[in-house]
Amino acid sequence: MYFKDFDQLIAQVQNFDEVRTVGVVCAEDEHALEAVLRVEKDRLIKPIYLGNKEAILKTAEKLHESIEEEAIIHVEDKLKAAELAVQLVHEKKIDIVMKGKLETKELLKPVVDKTTGLNESGVMSHIAIQKIPTYHKLLVTTDGGMLPYPTLEQKKQMIQNTVQTLLNMGYTLPKVGVLAAVEKVNPKMPETVEAAALKEMYETGEITNCIVEGPISLDLALVKERALVKEYESEVAGDVDILVVPNIHCGNILGKSFVEMAKAKMAGLVLGAKCPIVVTSRGSSAEEKYLSLILAAAACKGGK
Amino acid sequence: MYFKDFDQLIAQVQNFDEVRTVGVVCAEDEHALEAVLRVEKDRLIKPIYLGNKEAILKTAEKLHESIEEEAIIHVEDKLKAAELAVQLVHEKKIDIVMKGKLETKELLKPVVDKTTGLNESGVMSHIAIQKIPTYHKLLVTTDGGMLPYPTLEQKKQMIQNTVQTLLNMGYTLPKVGVLAAVEKVNPKMPETVEAAALKEMYETGEITNCIVEGPISLDLALVKERALVKEYESEVAGDVDILVVPNIHCGNILGKSFVEMAKAKMAGLVLGAKCPIVVTSRGSSAEEKYLSLILAAAACKGGK
Repeated sequence: MYFKDFDQLIAQVQNFDEVRTVGVVCAEDEHALEAVLRVEKDRLIKPIYLGNKEAILKTAEKLHESIEEEAIIHVEDKLKAAELAVQLVHEKKIDIVMKGKLETKELLKPVVDKTTGLNESGVMSHIAIQKIPTYHKLLVTTDGGMLPYPTLEQKKQMIQNTVQTLLNMGYTLPKVGVLAAVEKVNPKMPETVEAAALKEMYETGEITNCIVEGPISLDLALVKERALVKEYESEVAGDVDILVVPNIHCGNILGKSFVEMAKAKMAGLVLGAKCPIVVTSRGSSAEEKYLSLILAAAACKGGK
Repeated sequence: MYFKDFDQLIAQVQNFDEVRTVGVVCAEDEHALEAVLRVEKDRLIKPIYLGNKEAILKTAEKLHESIEEEAIIHVEDKLKAAELAVQLVHEKKIDIVMKGKLETKELLKPVVDKTTGLNESGVMSHIAIQKIPTYHKLLVTTDGGMLPYPTLEQKKQMIQNTVQTLLNMGYTLPKVGVLAAVEKVNPKMPETVEAAALKEMYETGEITNCIVEGPISLDLALVKERALVKEYESEVAGDVDILVVPNIHCGNILGKSFVEMAKAKMAGLVLGAKCPIVVTSRGSSAEEKYLSLILAAAACKGGK
């Protein structure tokens, strides 16, 4: 099972028995608030706003929206708001954490705290999930946002974080392609060596619940005919769900190429914590923020 | 001056007073021969076939084409054919070298020979030049095919090779964007440090005849509005001609993303030698091979 597009994903979230709760940290951010209010209106998510009460109400007013005061928990300090969100996750009062008007590193500080934090897997990673008009299903790229130069061990964890999230969403056996410029292992190209090592981890059962292929070039991963010409036989070829890129530059450049040149819609998420974390940036479109919240709702553990 | 698309480039080559001559090394290759014959029919190039005469005639027959025997120079040995091509370039009897039925490294061996070769710049690099339907002009990516992990000095030479080629084609002051995941220099990300260093080489006059910007992310390089939102001011933003990528994996993946997902047409060329070298692979489409020969003709030194 996989999702053809974001409409299918939205339909999935609409069918949940209960709506998920998102904790918006420093919710006085106009962009974040706008996105949350839109998803709330569609009854796909329930927000709890953490931050400066007065500032939050003022921002809502600016957006010509009203917020029920009971949905706001007043916290003066940014870090305290982030700490409270982590506590609310532990208490199962919120299912998703969203970044508002604070730096990503401020938000993540209490998240990665070794004793009180939410970092279950040891490695936090980022996924971009995109619908490219010329590809037949949603496509995940990892990691173009979190881990600059992942080690082999971190790449393994990146794959596991992503596969677990897709399983939570309802996928069965997602197909993973570990990208490189070539399909042949070349000792002078560590990217190819690590891709082969990740495939071996899959073959020996160290990575499960997915199919891992690599090294594989992008054209073979996305287009079956290209693989046929090159006589590259793999279930992943032409049908990949998850692209694993060598480093953050490659992931960022590839993701932006899909959006800007291939006109992809996208959503993003930080994985590896006890709950999905939505970290959209000022530059993100309103649609990206909306879809990221939908994705987070779909990605929570244990379907509702 | 720049080219909007390949049609403009073809028109430029059609307007040349004389046609360029290409030396096809080991021309008994079906795919190479097919492309050359098509460009010859359009009177855009004149071929000299180097290789096994009998095999070349047989391949032409297989393609239902005829070749004048005078256009063939019989050479039994692959390496000898490559050496002869290099000699013919020195003698100004051919303007372009094209790879036929031999390995790229076999073709390049006599090319890079320090005393008798053609390697003028010291660094050979690869360009992919693409027309993406969603971008307003031809776009060059370097290097996704030749230099695996270029040093700063090699990146400088990559830029100079590419700029010189574009100037030969008729460009004035091409715009170069050195890509990274972020626009801010971060000492922990060498790609950003080197991008800033390349920009500085441009500012101090060490790199000339172009405008260099970096580090710059792909969206800002390609889309003006994205740069405006981020308050990133640069002449290159939204109007880049040449994308410089950190390494071969990034370049290969980006180029393939343009072709497979954004439906780009492309041509490729090896630069840095005394003449353009066409090295298309078995996987390349007939159109790519055709356009690569056109590009080579346009890229020769001294417009005809």
